[in-house]
Amino acid sequence: MRPVVQQARRVCPVEVAVAVLGGSWKLSIVNALLEHGTLRTSALRRELTGVSERTLTRQLRELEIDGILARTVHPEVPPRVEYSVTELGLTLEDIVEAMNTWGRRIEERLES
Amino acid sequence: MRPVVQQARRVCPVEVAVAVLGGSWKLSIVNALLEHGTLRTSALRRELTGVSERTLTRQLRELEIDGILARTVHPEVPPRVEYSVTELGLTLEDIVEAMNTWGRRIEERLES
Repeated sequence: MRPVVQQARRVCPVEVAVAVLGGSWKLSIVNALLEHGTLRTSALRRELTGVSERTLTRQLRELEIDGILARTVHPEVPPRVEYSVTELGLTLEDIVEAMNTWGRRIEERLES
Repeated sequence: MRPVVQQARRVCPVEVAVAVLGGSWKLSIVNALLEHGTLRTSALRRELTGVSERTLTRQLRELEIDGILARTVHPEVPPRVEYSVTELGLTLEDIVEAMNTWGRRIEERLES
């Protein structure tokens, strides 16, 4: 786990979760992988309209360090890199669903 | 709602929720107010070990702009400023609880 997660432990469990998940695109990455299983970086970029290569690479690395995602490199030329959700990542299903539902509520509110 | 929330609407509902809630301390502020009802800024600072005055002021303002918190100024000398959760803020109870539970799971994992 990254230092920012370790520091959040001195505050409260909510901040620990926010330290792991709070960055933009992270829950959407988990959401896409929960939906599709295993995806290559290029496929993830297509799923996440508007994410930059740089941001996606950083968020994938952080999620991997924090044990949420697994990265598999297939020894081909060029190497094929795939991401999938770990067992710990699978436990995020409820949070992703709750955030999805709440986000829709905000969208409806903005449209009204 | 802030521009960053408006922009997240072009991505997906999860990013809309993350845009509103993702910043550090925000869900802990909501958590404290869900627990205690109405709190003054000074009481909030005592609740949230380690938050700086500057960060707390910014996060409170953003949560107010996004309609999650209500700010009440009592015309005393000096004026007394209190925060409470709005109706929209109350709908965050499930997310705060889910993040709390998940954050504990991460803490246990870090202790093992």
